[in-house]
Amino acid sequence: MLRVGIIGGTGYVGGELLRLLCVHPKAEVTVVTSRSHAGKPVDAMHPNLKGLLDLKFEDVDPSAIAHKCDLVFTAVPHGAAMNVVPGLVDAGLKVIDMSADYRLPADVFESVYNKKHADPRPTVYGLPELHAEEVKNATVVGNPGCYPTGAILTAAPLVAAGVVDRIVFDSKSGISGSGQEPSETTHYPNVAENVRPYNITTHRHKSEIDQELRALNNKVKIHFTPHVIPSVRGILTTAHAFINKPLTDDQVRAIYNEFYAGKPFIRMSKPTLANVRGSNFCDIAFEIEKGTDRIVIVSAIDNMVKGSAGEAIQNMNIMYGFDERTGIWMSGLPP
Amino acid sequence: MLRVGIIGGTGYVGGELLRLLCVHPKAEVTVVTSRSHAGKPVDAMHPNLKGLLDLKFEDVDPSAIAHKCDLVFTAVPHGAAMNVVPGLVDAGLKVIDMSADYRLPADVFESVYNKKHADPRPTVYGLPELHAEEVKNATVVGNPGCYPTGAILTAAPLVAAGVVDRIVFDSKSGISGSGQEPSETTHYPNVAENVRPYNITTHRHKSEIDQELRALNNKVKIHFTPHVIPSVRGILTTAHAFINKPLTDDQVRAIYNEFYAGKPFIRMSKPTLANVRGSNFCDIAFEIEKGTDRIVIVSAIDNMVKGSAGEAIQNMNIMYGFDERTGIWMSGLPP
Amino acid sequence: MLRVGIIGGTGYVGGELLRLLCVHPKAEVTVVTSRSHAGKPVDAMHPNLKGLLDLKFEDVDPSAIAHKCDLVFTAVPHGAAMNVVPGLVDAGLKVIDMSADYRLPADVFESVYNKKHADPRPTVYGLPELHAEEVKNATVVGNPGCYPTGAILTAAPLVAAGVVDRIVFDSKSGISGSGQEPSETTHYPNVAENVRPYNITTHRHKSEIDQELRALNNKVKIHFTPHVIPSVRGILTTAHAFINKPLTDDQVRAIYNEFYAGKPFIRMSKPTLANVRGSNFCDIAFEIEKGTDRIVIVSAIDNMVKGSAGEAIQNMNIMYGFDERTGIWMSGLPP
Amino acid sequence: MLRVGIIGGTGYVGGELLRLLCVHPKAEVTVVTSRSHAGKPVDAMHPNLKGLLDLKFEDVDPSAIAHKCDLVFTAVPHGAAMNVVPGLVDAGLKVIDMSADYRLPADVFESVYNKKHADPRPTVYGLPELHAEEVKNATVVGNPGCYPTGAILTAAPLVAAGVVDRIVFDSKSGISGSGQEPSETTHYPNVAENVRPYNITTHRHKSEIDQELRALNNKVKIHFTPHVIPSVRGILTTAHAFINKPLTDDQVRAIYNEFYAGKPFIRMSKPTLANVRGSNFCDIAFEIEKGTDRIVIVSAIDNMVKGSAGEAIQNMNIMYGFDERTGIWMSGLPP
Repeated sequence: MLRVGIIGGTGYVGGELLRLLCVHPKAEVTVVTSRSHAGKPVDAMHPNLKGLLDLKFEDVDPSAIAHKCDLVFTAVPHGAAMNVVPGLVDAGLKVIDMSADYRLPADVFESVYNKKHADPRPTVYGLPELHAEEVKNATVVGNPGCYPTGAILTAAPLVAAGVVDRIVFDSKSGISGSGQEPSETTHYPNVAENVRPYNITTHRHKSEIDQELRALNNKVKIHFTPHVIPSVRGILTTAHAFINKPLTDDQVRAIYNEFYAGKPFIRMSKPTLANVRGSNFCDIAFEIEKGTDRIVIVSAIDNMVKGSAGEAIQNMNIMYGFDERTGIWMSGLPP
Repeated sequence: MLRVGIIGGTGYVGGELLRLLCVHPKAEVTVVTSRSHAGKPVDAMHPNLKGLLDLKFEDVDPSAIAHKCDLVFTAVPHGAAMNVVPGLVDAGLKVIDMSADYRLPADVFESVYNKKHADPRPTVYGLPELHAEEVKNATVVGNPGCYPTGAILTAAPLVAAGVVDRIVFDSKSGISGSGQEPSETTHYPNVAENVRPYNITTHRHKSEIDQELRALNNKVKIHFTPHVIPSVRGILTTAHAFINKPLTDDQVRAIYNEFYAGKPFIRMSKPTLANVRGSNFCDIAFEIEKGTDRIVIVSAIDNMVKGSAGEAIQNMNIMYGFDERTGIWMSGLPP
Repeated sequence: MLRVGIIGGTGYVGGELLRLLCVHPKAEVTVVTSRSHAGKPVDAMHPNLKGLLDLKFEDVDPSAIAHKCDLVFTAVPHGAAMNVVPGLVDAGLKVIDMSADYRLPADVFESVYNKKHADPRPTVYGLPELHAEEVKNATVVGNPGCYPTGAILTAAPLVAAGVVDRIVFDSKSGISGSGQEPSETTHYPNVAENVRPYNITTHRHKSEIDQELRALNNKVKIHFTPHVIPSVRGILTTAHAFINKPLTDDQVRAIYNEFYAGKPFIRMSKPTLANVRGSNFCDIAFEIEKGTDRIVIVSAIDNMVKGSAGEAIQNMNIMYGFDERTGIWMSGLPP
Repeated sequence: MLRVGIIGGTGYVGGELLRLLCVHPKAEVTVVTSRSHAGKPVDAMHPNLKGLLDLKFEDVDPSAIAHKCDLVFTAVPHGAAMNVVPGLVDAGLKVIDMSADYRLPADVFESVYNKKHADPRPTVYGLPELHAEEVKNATVVGNPGCYPTGAILTAAPLVAAGVVDRIVFDSKSGISGSGQEPSETTHYPNVAENVRPYNITTHRHKSEIDQELRALNNKVKIHFTPHVIPSVRGILTTAHAFINKPLTDDQVRAIYNEFYAGKPFIRMSKPTLANVRGSNFCDIAFEIEKGTDRIVIVSAIDNMVKGSAGEAIQNMNIMYGFDERTGIWMSGLPP
């Protein structure tokens, strides 16, 4: 049994990791930390876990953790992870970091997040469909952002095929991506019966999308605008791509099928948030506009699973040689 | 033109008063106060009013207000109103208070709200369908709570008829009743796809329901449990009433029709939140359970209109001899 | 591996059984029937299952089914099941029926559903927390209705203890209980931002609640009013119970703990739809009203799981001697 | 008092016209037709109007209508209007048609709607901000589609200024645009917690957007993809525009301010569906992407008001020389 810990287990990301890991057949959660709730039962903060998990929050102590864990997930805020991870690595642990701290090279991070990086080690971008080999041998994996997971998976095959010049990602996300902390933007009357674009041309997740897609084709132009819709979970990504040569449906389908061959969580299937809710799947479909140079590719993921905790467990599975589906091979929850 | 002011104009109640008053044909808003936003345009906080209202927030100054107003609505928190109202009254103004401070006799208020009352004057409970005559001549009107408006209107005719022994009010409210301030209970993921009972046997609004219904029949037993549903506006009140003698549909209908004769905002009509949304109507229907002593009466109101700002304007209309429908005679907003 | 079939696999109930059974470690779905979709892949109707299940819909043929199955779930409409079940039983199969046809004695069924019963065999009411012993040896189990599951579990301990005289169940359900077929009552604009009481004093599920609670105490008076809230899944049951002697919190807690000792899916925990969403748990809490004879007990279940498919699988587990948690021991899905 | 009739008054469009017209100070509804509900009170289908309107549905009879009306709104399906309008015009009535039948030249209509046009008269496209002069003198006005109203108003100033080469309209609409008839796509479980792109490259409304924007600059390339979000009312249009020369914020703002000078319903204000809900406003904002050729313009309208009934009444006001705000000058309904 792989022994895993969660650093920062009170928020949505920690809760979602626990939801999935508490029934994972090859991993056991042995430590969950929280500075502010140390000593309290984990199910006091996550009552959905009552009966499924019998642990108390502990304070963070790398050497104590190292005695009880093989791997830790760091689910602390951006900027905090970089101060926690080195100690964990030094104590001999592998780390999957859920924040933005290990997704970008340190210099890019510093420019995008406007913050000095305290631990500028080389990073592995933990998008398993693109980087399984590097993940396999990584000590620290930077787990991707939710929007980037959706956007990159939507467009990567066409970009890699060199047929796309420009893509506008118009993304629609559930509000859970904003986290557990109440704010004006998560206030029910401000979300319900509404749809809110934000950081319209400036969202920091764009740097991850740029990094990954431009690694596949450095000439592609990327635009990204996120919106929040009245939904708790899920991201629907609408990618308006402009192609540089005519393509048929069959050609596009072949590009996707080939690119994602052997990737169990990618389904060429009409995307709806319901069909992927609670699951690690990414459903993708496309439509070519007749008489123009536009192709629209649409995908759906659960931002908390494939866009966060599920993807992290998929990375864990890969790091330890388990079938990558282990513990996360379940249906979405429609309706 | 009646000149009106709003003390505390930044919240939901102030905003809703402004939404309705800015097109009221016999009243003009001349002052809107806010300590924290003094000097800012009102439409900076209420962008829905842009183009409809050209005012700036002012600081609270009773004598200045008295020069510009005939009537003020006090839309400040419970416990704060009692410190503001005396100065306004002394300056010659009439007041409709939106808080709980003037709904109950001072001794009852003190016991329910656990707070010394600073202005223990006799109160007029501003439920126009029951107290139009007192409202007409009042200087200070205590505008009813949203749950009490729904509950009292639902049951008053049967209680007054002396046919009911006990009523369980199971109320379902939109979240806007919690106000504009974000909190854990208004966080979208905690409200959506959920329904939350709270203050299950202890909600303070029960004292208003008690006061009004027991004035009609002091033997009736009242129970009240509120719930929040995933809706922004509206209260649906389900009243489970236990009757002390058999009644037919026709008898019950007659009781309601007679009690509400000449009350334009009460409609005997299948209640849905949509049909009353944004409007001052209260829609009521009932069903007698065959073979038992239960009758179920259901009503729908918009908590922000008939349960707050609309009812206040109805009171204003009555105080100044206008037709009580003036400025609030509009359809609900389905779908 | 237990071989199971689903008769009527295109609707919500069939889909939810498939969602859970496709990853059940001791059961394998070998047959899914649909008259209208025979020959089509199951994941054409349930795209959430793509990759998880490789089956085609078949036409209904009891003898063919008997060769491939040990147990079948009949997920066909009320009134249809009674015509299908006898043939399956004669072919040697065990049956868990998801309709209302086997929940009530035939004479009660006929009176409530106003329909002649074609198969008036003795029934086993498959509420595992009350009838595990009978379920164990049953050939045909009538799987309970969703509202009754919630209502009975909420009140049974107090009723069995003889301390309750009367209960008003005010239930709030997600719309998925209305099934997959679009109608005026499931039309989004009629459900969103609304709450709708229906069959206010006449819902047929009341007969199940009566049957089970009056078997525990035949003097208790039962009232039941269902509502639909803007939620897809979940039932919150608010039980207003009137007690015949004073009770303390400790006494009530002891009554529940004793009654549900050893029942893994019952949790004494603050009920929210989110915490049980997608899971088989029933979360229960209570509050005693000071100075009156009312106690309010509240529960939350997922109507599609504990109120339908999950409970059916729990029954299956019991019938075949598996741990009753097998395949359904998973967390709810908050947020 | 202008006498107006509504042909086809049972659906959402008819209901919304009635909601607004029943309190319009210069118009009186004298006829509402419905073949299937002739003889029934209008408020039986539109219970929100109870107390506000005392009319019965009548059968359609152009000459009878002509005796009682000056103007009629035809709110019948696409393809049906063209068979009704000629008779009304011949009877001397002015007509505002709510369907697609009079928005496009007959040849374009026939190609887009794949249907022979029965009444190929020249059309006036009733977007008042662009065509007030033609509307003023029109006999038949084709009231614009909801998506086109949002899209055209969002982009027209930049297109007219010649600075835009290509625009991708990614529109998000409430479900009320699908009408009153329940269907799989309006089924609550399919809409809630979801977002659905549809007619991704083929929506027929694109022809209206093309017509109007290419009349302003025939070189602009238009793309349009609509989505349905879990909202009843409202359209948020996200326009990703590609500019052919660098622009500053001030320049863009000046372009909009000049283009919309004297247009009371256009507000340069952060768009939210709540701020325009129930109102005739169109709120617009923009953001220029640094370092690229993209500008994102976003607008919000209520699809049932500015995108339908409100715009029609605005057209009516213009046709009869009333202030265009008459009867529709009201705030949106936040929260």
